[in-house]
Amino acid sequence: MNDLGRLSLNIATTKRWTLREAVDGAVRAGLPAVGLWRDRVAEEGLAESAALLREAGLRVSSLCRGGFLTAAGEAGVRTALEDNCAAIVEASTLGTDAVVLVVGGLPEGDRDLAGARERVAERIADLAPFAREHGVRLALEPLHPMYCADRAVISTLGQALDLAAPHPPAEVAVVVDTFHVFWDPALAENIARAGREDRIASYQVCDFALPIAQDALLSRGMMGDGVIDFAATTRMIAAAGYTGDVEVEIFSADIWNTPGDQVIATMISRYRDLVLPHLTG
Amino acid sequence: MNDLGRLSLNIATTKRWTLREAVDGAVRAGLPAVGLWRDRVAEEGLAESAALLREAGLRVSSLCRGGFLTAAGEAGVRTALEDNCAAIVEASTLGTDAVVLVVGGLPEGDRDLAGARERVAERIADLAPFAREHGVRLALEPLHPMYCADRAVISTLGQALDLAAPHPPAEVAVVVDTFHVFWDPALAENIARAGREDRIASYQVCDFALPIAQDALLSRGMMGDGVIDFAATTRMIAAAGYTGDVEVEIFSADIWNTPGDQVIATMISRYRDLVLPHLTG
Repeated sequence: MNDLGRLSLNIATTKRWTLREAVDGAVRAGLPAVGLWRDRVAEEGLAESAALLREAGLRVSSLCRGGFLTAAGEAGVRTALEDNCAAIVEASTLGTDAVVLVVGGLPEGDRDLAGARERVAERIADLAPFAREHGVRLALEPLHPMYCADRAVISTLGQALDLAAPHPPAEVAVVVDTFHVFWDPALAENIARAGREDRIASYQVCDFALPIAQDALLSRGMMGDGVIDFAATTRMIAAAGYTGDVEVEIFSADIWNTPGDQVIATMISRYRDLVLPHLTG
Repeated sequence: MNDLGRLSLNIATTKRWTLREAVDGAVRAGLPAVGLWRDRVAEEGLAESAALLREAGLRVSSLCRGGFLTAAGEAGVRTALEDNCAAIVEASTLGTDAVVLVVGGLPEGDRDLAGARERVAERIADLAPFAREHGVRLALEPLHPMYCADRAVISTLGQALDLAAPHPPAEVAVVVDTFHVFWDPALAENIARAGREDRIASYQVCDFALPIAQDALLSRGMMGDGVIDFAATTRMIAAAGYTGDVEVEIFSADIWNTPGDQVIATMISRYRDLVLPHLTG
């Protein structure tokens, strides 16, 4: 295995590319894996996507995303369960065991964060057995607290692990995305805990760039262009025993306006400099 | 005592007013207290400010701010200590026992968050005895994690309490500002802990408005205009035994562009509706 053997392109990083273009780009660059998004898979067709990936010889490191589990009321719950069951089936068909869940924010006009978090726990319990039947883990992604109200009420890795705790690690796991968790004073202890509990489904790297972008969702940057210490975080992940893929997922207007091959070349170079040296214990 | 007996105007909320104008505005509205900023005090003069407040019959609920303790190197440390000692003397002169510390972000080009946090602990230890001699508590303010890199490496109430733990509560305490902590899944347990340890120096209320403002520091809103459940947070504070002032501190271009008397009237109305009913256990 060459030195890129664990590097995965999350296709949100090359957002303007179709699935087919992203697969071709990953293959051209010698990458072994991609992280997928459901909208790009739907455009290509599920069976066609699975075939495309198989023929290209690429692993699928994760499927983004299920979630949005905070709705109250029978109709909202039913919609959430149906959509997440569909995501689980898609993940299974695509050959990945990780479906990433961004669990949703407060329903419109609602301020009851504790209630929303309880509903997330209930929906995870609803979905976990279905996931396991399909050989897929629900990968809970804590999002940066600035997205707590409108995007994901899971705000820390410790909270994600508490939500996972009632379920076996083969059913419910977590995502560690540097952008979302780097600030957390309890990060080291919770990455170690996630490793002990065998719950690290995905390690995603991208930087936190300042100032925060006008569209706060796009405040991400290429590794090295922001404030995150990738050496420190990657050593925690390695010490926790994680041996899976390292996904690069960057939402950034600048990066989206850069040709995909160039983005991948930069990503490979930064990975080699900032992440890879710290990835093996 | 009337029903505004615990309501304090932090003068950053009426930013365009001089200290004298803010004092007059608070008195006109029947408020018993103000939270001060050092720049407005310096404009007026320290002794003059203290006399002005005494004559107006206003309590000073806190002085903002000291901090910026993360510098490395002898000169940086010396500058930080001198400035914070000055803030402590000013607080003492103004008759408040709380000097709010915003501890600072990463030094330029530095990514070692753990190191910066260690230096904060060291500077607190340097300053705590001096504060006590002057009858002032260092009030550590955890800031929202979106400001971790550039403004304050204290990101959670639990972390602030851990930093306070080596020192008596008469020397080091914490600020609970709803804007900064509402998202925290461990909030209830840490407010209770802060109460048990007698470390709540200040309860500040302001809302978290979406979308995040282009200048992220100005993303605050009047209580009721954002996503925060003031009933829930205020009940936690009351249950923790806090009997001090409730400061309203809002950084917002819209509010700063509104006449100060009108801002105070809205603040009083929202306080009566959203905070006061939950303030006594």
